[in-house]
Amino acid sequence: MNQDRIRKLLSEVKQGGVSVEAAIKELSRLPFIDTESARVDTHRALRQGIPEVIFGLGKTPAQIAEVAAALTEAGQPVLVTRLESGDAKEVQKVVQGGVYDATARILFYGSDSVDIVGKGTIAVVSAGTADSPVAAEAAVVAQRFGNRVERVQDVGVAGIHRLFAAEEILRAARVLIVVAGMEGALPSVVGGMVDKPVIAVPTSIGYGVSLGGLTALFGMLTSCASNVTVVNIDNGFGAAYAATLINRL
Amino acid sequence: MNQDRIRKLLSEVKQGGVSVEAAIKELSRLPFIDTESARVDTHRALRQGIPEVIFGLGKTPAQIAEVAAALTEAGQPVLVTRLESGDAKEVQKVVQGGVYDATARILFYGSDSVDIVGKGTIAVVSAGTADSPVAAEAAVVAQRFGNRVERVQDVGVAGIHRLFAAEEILRAARVLIVVAGMEGALPSVVGGMVDKPVIAVPTSIGYGVSLGGLTALFGMLTSCASNVTVVNIDNGFGAAYAATLINRL
Amino acid sequence: MNQDRIRKLLSEVKQGGVSVEAAIKELSRLPFIDTESARVDTHRALRQGIPEVIFGLGKTPAQIAEVAAALTEAGQPVLVTRLESGDAKEVQKVVQGGVYDATARILFYGSDSVDIVGKGTIAVVSAGTADSPVAAEAAVVAQRFGNRVERVQDVGVAGIHRLFAAEEILRAARVLIVVAGMEGALPSVVGGMVDKPVIAVPTSIGYGVSLGGLTALFGMLTSCASNVTVVNIDNGFGAAYAATLINRL
Amino acid sequence: MNQDRIRKLLSEVKQGGVSVEAAIKELSRLPFIDTESARVDTHRALRQGIPEVIFGLGKTPAQIAEVAAALTEAGQPVLVTRLESGDAKEVQKVVQGGVYDATARILFYGSDSVDIVGKGTIAVVSAGTADSPVAAEAAVVAQRFGNRVERVQDVGVAGIHRLFAAEEILRAARVLIVVAGMEGALPSVVGGMVDKPVIAVPTSIGYGVSLGGLTALFGMLTSCASNVTVVNIDNGFGAAYAATLINRL
Amino acid sequence: MNQDRIRKLLSEVKQGGVSVEAAIKELSRLPFIDTESARVDTHRALRQGIPEVIFGLGKTPAQIAEVAAALTEAGQPVLVTRLESGDAKEVQKVVQGGVYDATARILFYGSDSVDIVGKGTIAVVSAGTADSPVAAEAAVVAQRFGNRVERVQDVGVAGIHRLFAAEEILRAARVLIVVAGMEGALPSVVGGMVDKPVIAVPTSIGYGVSLGGLTALFGMLTSCASNVTVVNIDNGFGAAYAATLINRL
Amino acid sequence: MNQDRIRKLLSEVKQGGVSVEAAIKELSRLPFIDTESARVDTHRALRQGIPEVIFGLGKTPAQIAEVAAALTEAGQPVLVTRLESGDAKEVQKVVQGGVYDATARILFYGSDSVDIVGKGTIAVVSAGTADSPVAAEAAVVAQRFGNRVERVQDVGVAGIHRLFAAEEILRAARVLIVVAGMEGALPSVVGGMVDKPVIAVPTSIGYGVSLGGLTALFGMLTSCASNVTVVNIDNGFGAAYAATLINRL
Amino acid sequence: MNQDRIRKLLSEVKQGGVSVEAAIKELSRLPFIDTESARVDTHRALRQGIPEVIFGLGKTPAQIAEVAAALTEAGQPVLVTRLESGDAKEVQKVVQGGVYDATARILFYGSDSVDIVGKGTIAVVSAGTADSPVAAEAAVVAQRFGNRVERVQDVGVAGIHRLFAAEEILRAARVLIVVAGMEGALPSVVGGMVDKPVIAVPTSIGYGVSLGGLTALFGMLTSCASNVTVVNIDNGFGAAYAATLINRL
Amino acid sequence: MNQDRIRKLLSEVKQGGVSVEAAIKELSRLPFIDTESARVDTHRALRQGIPEVIFGLGKTPAQIAEVAAALTEAGQPVLVTRLESGDAKEVQKVVQGGVYDATARILFYGSDSVDIVGKGTIAVVSAGTADSPVAAEAAVVAQRFGNRVERVQDVGVAGIHRLFAAEEILRAARVLIVVAGMEGALPSVVGGMVDKPVIAVPTSIGYGVSLGGLTALFGMLTSCASNVTVVNIDNGFGAAYAATLINRL
Repeated sequence: MNQDRIRKLLSEVKQGGVSVEAAIKELSRLPFIDTESARVDTHRALRQGIPEVIFGLGKTPAQIAEVAAALTEAGQPVLVTRLESGDAKEVQKVVQGGVYDATARILFYGSDSVDIVGKGTIAVVSAGTADSPVAAEAAVVAQRFGNRVERVQDVGVAGIHRLFAAEEILRAARVLIVVAGMEGALPSVVGGMVDKPVIAVPTSIGYGVSLGGLTALFGMLTSCASNVTVVNIDNGFGAAYAATLINRL
Repeated sequence: MNQDRIRKLLSEVKQGGVSVEAAIKELSRLPFIDTESARVDTHRALRQGIPEVIFGLGKTPAQIAEVAAALTEAGQPVLVTRLESGDAKEVQKVVQGGVYDATARILFYGSDSVDIVGKGTIAVVSAGTADSPVAAEAAVVAQRFGNRVERVQDVGVAGIHRLFAAEEILRAARVLIVVAGMEGALPSVVGGMVDKPVIAVPTSIGYGVSLGGLTALFGMLTSCASNVTVVNIDNGFGAAYAATLINRL
Repeated sequence: MNQDRIRKLLSEVKQGGVSVEAAIKELSRLPFIDTESARVDTHRALRQGIPEVIFGLGKTPAQIAEVAAALTEAGQPVLVTRLESGDAKEVQKVVQGGVYDATARILFYGSDSVDIVGKGTIAVVSAGTADSPVAAEAAVVAQRFGNRVERVQDVGVAGIHRLFAAEEILRAARVLIVVAGMEGALPSVVGGMVDKPVIAVPTSIGYGVSLGGLTALFGMLTSCASNVTVVNIDNGFGAAYAATLINRL
Repeated sequence: MNQDRIRKLLSEVKQGGVSVEAAIKELSRLPFIDTESARVDTHRALRQGIPEVIFGLGKTPAQIAEVAAALTEAGQPVLVTRLESGDAKEVQKVVQGGVYDATARILFYGSDSVDIVGKGTIAVVSAGTADSPVAAEAAVVAQRFGNRVERVQDVGVAGIHRLFAAEEILRAARVLIVVAGMEGALPSVVGGMVDKPVIAVPTSIGYGVSLGGLTALFGMLTSCASNVTVVNIDNGFGAAYAATLINRL
Repeated sequence: MNQDRIRKLLSEVKQGGVSVEAAIKELSRLPFIDTESARVDTHRALRQGIPEVIFGLGKTPAQIAEVAAALTEAGQPVLVTRLESGDAKEVQKVVQGGVYDATARILFYGSDSVDIVGKGTIAVVSAGTADSPVAAEAAVVAQRFGNRVERVQDVGVAGIHRLFAAEEILRAARVLIVVAGMEGALPSVVGGMVDKPVIAVPTSIGYGVSLGGLTALFGMLTSCASNVTVVNIDNGFGAAYAATLINRL
Repeated sequence: MNQDRIRKLLSEVKQGGVSVEAAIKELSRLPFIDTESARVDTHRALRQGIPEVIFGLGKTPAQIAEVAAALTEAGQPVLVTRLESGDAKEVQKVVQGGVYDATARILFYGSDSVDIVGKGTIAVVSAGTADSPVAAEAAVVAQRFGNRVERVQDVGVAGIHRLFAAEEILRAARVLIVVAGMEGALPSVVGGMVDKPVIAVPTSIGYGVSLGGLTALFGMLTSCASNVTVVNIDNGFGAAYAATLINRL
Repeated sequence: MNQDRIRKLLSEVKQGGVSVEAAIKELSRLPFIDTESARVDTHRALRQGIPEVIFGLGKTPAQIAEVAAALTEAGQPVLVTRLESGDAKEVQKVVQGGVYDATARILFYGSDSVDIVGKGTIAVVSAGTADSPVAAEAAVVAQRFGNRVERVQDVGVAGIHRLFAAEEILRAARVLIVVAGMEGALPSVVGGMVDKPVIAVPTSIGYGVSLGGLTALFGMLTSCASNVTVVNIDNGFGAAYAATLINRL
Repeated sequence: MNQDRIRKLLSEVKQGGVSVEAAIKELSRLPFIDTESARVDTHRALRQGIPEVIFGLGKTPAQIAEVAAALTEAGQPVLVTRLESGDAKEVQKVVQGGVYDATARILFYGSDSVDIVGKGTIAVVSAGTADSPVAAEAAVVAQRFGNRVERVQDVGVAGIHRLFAAEEILRAARVLIVVAGMEGALPSVVGGMVDKPVIAVPTSIGYGVSLGGLTALFGMLTSCASNVTVVNIDNGFGAAYAATLINRL
């Protein structure tokens, strides 16, 4: 339920088209919907202008389908992240329709085209092939949240001429999401090339002392480029969320 | 390009051998200035629209003074962070003038009033008395970078009514910086209350398993509020820097 | 004292050679029962008024069944925690009967209804859907140990109005168990809302720097709410055990 | 401000002795008092029945004195923990009076004798001489919060007959606080001896792999005694706080 | 090849029964045997009086069989540790015979009975059912190395009367191996009960902050009982090896 | 520059429109090739004289085949590391031919014999049987990069006479790669025996506090032999790469 | 049993009311002596044949002197470890006499010569100059506990011929204590050279990833020499204690 | 004592100028010299062609002076690293002469000019002002070991044009030492720019999650540039040592 619907409801109340009792009932569904296993925060769409997203990791297809159904019934779009393809099929059996992006591991329900509400472009930059799933998650989420997205991929710092070839795209972006595993040095270099906010996403890609992404994370947090802020390991979704809010300013 | 070349260029301008326009063009391409111990990146002010800031931690007063003098000569404002009061006095002996803020541990040179170039307000929210120095650093830097700043302090999550009393200020901000030590839960709660980007700053305040700020940092990175991005422990400066770029969008 | 001695004692009671009173006295001094692979501490039920519980993790169904049989023979109720459903079926093949709760992963033998010996209500509060198994373990164990239990679920701190909607239940409880993964901030907020002891249970739910629950654990230990004490990651059982003792005071 | 004072105020309003305006003014001071650097939560005394305590670590004597003065003016008792003797003297220069306990590192203001509101005895058990400051903090705080306290000290597990000599005291307690550094094994053994809640406090005492108390903390969290819950390293105050709430049940 | 065989060989040389050339050839096989993938240290039996043991973890059955065959050919007994039952069967297909102990995960070749060369008894004490495999490894290895072994099991510190029931066995031992997971407190308590060397073996049993055995390990290393030394997590073999050398003194 | 341009260029050479010299010049400036999912750095072969190597871990066979095909088409040799045998077969279905080394887990395409361009011999020394895969990776890569390679294996420090038997080979090498797991002591001892650079490779082999290779890594970094530098855990490839560059000096 | 009872008993012996035999029996059951701040375990001398040792770290000189006086009065020798020279002087002011060893940081009271009760020699081997204090602690304690001690120092593994020069001493020892910091490889090499128990002592000497001794500790625990057991970082005392018990077997 | 001196000695023996007895005595001093507290490895100069270096950290001035005197007497040059200026003065009081470099914290004795034996230039590249001491240590040691050294400083990756300005120097070097703190990204970028071996030195400079250099270290070890090997945190000496051996090849 978005602000337009609330505004419309209140106007109808004012004009007598909807009784006070009916409006109260409608609005009382607002803050959250209690399903059997979850309290769905439909209010958040109101508070932040972004619909509830279902984080798939650690949830069963049944639990996901339950929430997805509640949201769909409430007339809201649905976005499920971190969903393996097998589980996506299970969900789609219960809640028909939806589009599944296998690289980004995202399932969404709603209109195919999304209104662009972001003011500029969000660049999603990634270092290696193995970082693709996280970068794809960031790109798909940002796109579904109403942003123009540009992808720049496979531009690791050890072959830095590859990165410079994309300089124009980087400089044209209003916000940048930089995804990297291993030593996580890419956001520092990109951060030094632009004068826009950079959101760094460490990935769990690597071995040995990459420590499941901790080294990339710590490298990004200690970046010598001051326009870099950081989200949790593999959290492409969070980066897209924050970038979306920034791009709407 | 070294100081001799700058000196020569400025002499030629003075004597009419080089036009003002030509000199501006020449100077705008200035990549950096080599001092005895550092290569000062005066270019960054051009690239990112924010002047070079000297990070005081681990530098001797002499090294700081050397860079500060180079910047002052180049007509740039100077901002030194993480500078203890004794060291600030040493620097001020060499580079006269400047204002020192003891809570924020910041020394700056330049005009007292700063042109406001940020479009909205940056709220700086902090949890406990002990987090004050980091919050003050963020607030002073944000103000020096041309932003309106609002402070909300001592609003820890265990007495959550204190936070709610400041809800209006939080909602009015365009960007929020939330500073917290211990379990670092404040950004999650604030993040859930607003629909704007929140930059979380963990502090090293605490004991036992606060682990010098690691617990607050990790808590912020795993925040269930998706509009939260994070900077390094005690990095009030970095939060202000990123918030400044966002506030200029 | 081994099984032979118990068998002999019970035979003598049956045959009248030993009075019931004498047998009770004898049995109450029973320190433990030696099975093939374990020394079962039946004495603990006497010392702490709570029956022996079998921790299923890392034990084979055969080992569990052996102990369960010994306890059942001794006339004691049996509670097996951390038991996957497949293993539960194996145990139930050997020791017939029993009820298995799939969410809580608990198998118990004994009367369906339990005498309420706890003086008040234990509230079991959890943050996210994924924390359900641990919260369920705490709730089922607390109920089996003779407490009235109230569940409040899916009340994460980033949508704090959901938590406030349950304030009445929280304030009515005599002891609270608060279960949370990720940043583990929920116990701090709940702790600030009530004047009763809060036992916090971190869960291993999360990814990246949630570090298998360490971040939630450390966040809870550094909580700014002073009425919070903490148990090991995922230890819903331990929280219920301690809450039970407190609720009997 | 305690509940009695609020009740009295409201009675006076009812009987006309206090005007509604005056009462509103009085009550409006209730939730918190803003001092220059802190928002003092005088409301907490109302919410939890325990006065605000000032955590001295990381605060300057001036900051502490400011809060202490505000509380004293509000007619509340004051308890400052983690205060080194030199700093205590500084505080006492500003806020005259007060008693300083050097072992417990606690400064308090208020009546010498405290009304006993705890229903039973809190036993404070410690393992080694070096754990004394933390045990003393727990004991003094518990006593100031209105509990009868029994101390048992220097009863490490490697000379376990020393512990057994105190068995009677342990069994008589309604709640137990067990303080230990090094391997932190004492709470397990004590926990197995009693049927009451045990709050374990790891201390930072030790060297090498005691890791500043982490080993003791982790040992306590993995205790095989299920009646043990744990607080942060060196957090004698928190243990006393939670024990106080339990002892009032 | 043991010292007796060397002595016999040299005697035969002296008496002319073996030519110098033949003896050189024989002895030249002494220091080690090169197989395709390993350099087998048959010399160690000579240096330390204990035969080469094959550590099975991370080796393929083929690699193990290759070394086992080489040792068998050299007339030496063979002991393979950390060998899962499936792999054991694979090895036994190649090197016929051998006895496999499923609990201890040990496969050995050689005479069924072993000459007792240890002067006293080695007690192997373990805390919980789940520690059995490590304790069994220690016991079987110690027995195969020629020691009398006494087992005491399931004597955790939270039910300490169970441990005291075994005091006589503990005091009678010449060396003690104490195996424990979780908080690893058992060696401290046992260490305080005896005046003999105690070798502590942490196990990887546990969950949450047991950290795969690190907490038990660190607890044992910080034991307040000074007669405790420690080996690596799950290293029942190493404990038995060291105990064997001590028991031969 | 994309494949179309290369195709066009080569056609023009074939048809005489572009001279061989001009084409070489053109091609030598080739920065990289964009495939669907990766930006292949063919330039590196020119910059460092060593062909692009595909790191197989975390890539799908399809992704690997895509890059391998691009390189093969560009007339470059291909070397894929960390490739399990099943995946190798998948790749070989797409890009026919190639040789797979199962111990080293390496698949390569190109001529069977490699021109020796290294000036001396690289010794690859390993401690235990279980370190073989990493040592084999180092040896095969070094050989494919044009070096003479000598293998010394199974020479752990606890049987140090085995190592001394290989002293001549060690001293004859121009660069040494020393591979070890567990405590990682071998590079220190080897480092002390030679006056040449030693590259230490920790392996993830071990259990308990070997911590997946961290202990070996840290041991090597704190080596008391100053001629030792270190690469990431299990990084046999990196060691061979650096050794190759050194051996070409 | 408190001091008054001891005083009374001794008076009765003096006056003939209690026979010497009866008094010995009485005193031998003395569990411990309560001083103001500690419960001194004089019983341990009887249980383990080794007198109580005062661990100086973290105790004030006053606390140490109190216990030392109690032990001296009880006619027991006193050994204080980890005592800085300034504190030693403070203790000696209160308890006159005593000998202070500055390298070993040990103060002891009692007869200059100690009866040799150990059956063989304990070798104390150390790697670097910086490890001397810990090695000295081990050597002095072992000597005071009645053992013959041989010192071998500065025999790091990177110059292994230095170690071999001491082979005879190593082989002649009945027990070996090996002290090393940095990578902690020395015990592995020594362990491979002898067939006796080796007790390894990691030291906190080092920088960077020596991690305050953790790397040495972990290296020793993962030693490939199976006759090595380990004590806590810098715990020369514990090594000497365990070695003493072994040397008495 | 270097190989020339040994050769000369042996020639004199051959020619009769030195008696066999005298030569034996001379040579017997070769392997090491025992001073009171250290066994000085003068042999190493022979084995590796680089004189013994005294690591000053953790040694007293007296211990350093003792070894320095022994080396000076043996006619060897002396190099003491990690020596604070106050301690250097103490050493120079005992062993007169010597040159102290305050930035590099190095004291050396020997001829002012050193014969250049390295075949090319060693570039020492550093990221920030604060990394200067470690870079200076590497540069001074490399110079004293007979190498031509080029310094490039203050070229952090966030202002990457500064680094590119030095590209010519980087490409001209035969070996590169790259020193960086914080995220440690510099070696990756430099490594990608050259085809020579790069030795990375992490520094302990930084705060928060720089973790005393661990983040820089791990970043370097996971570098995507394959020509990078790494030494311990702050180990400028080790880097120079290895670079020297490489530069002599």
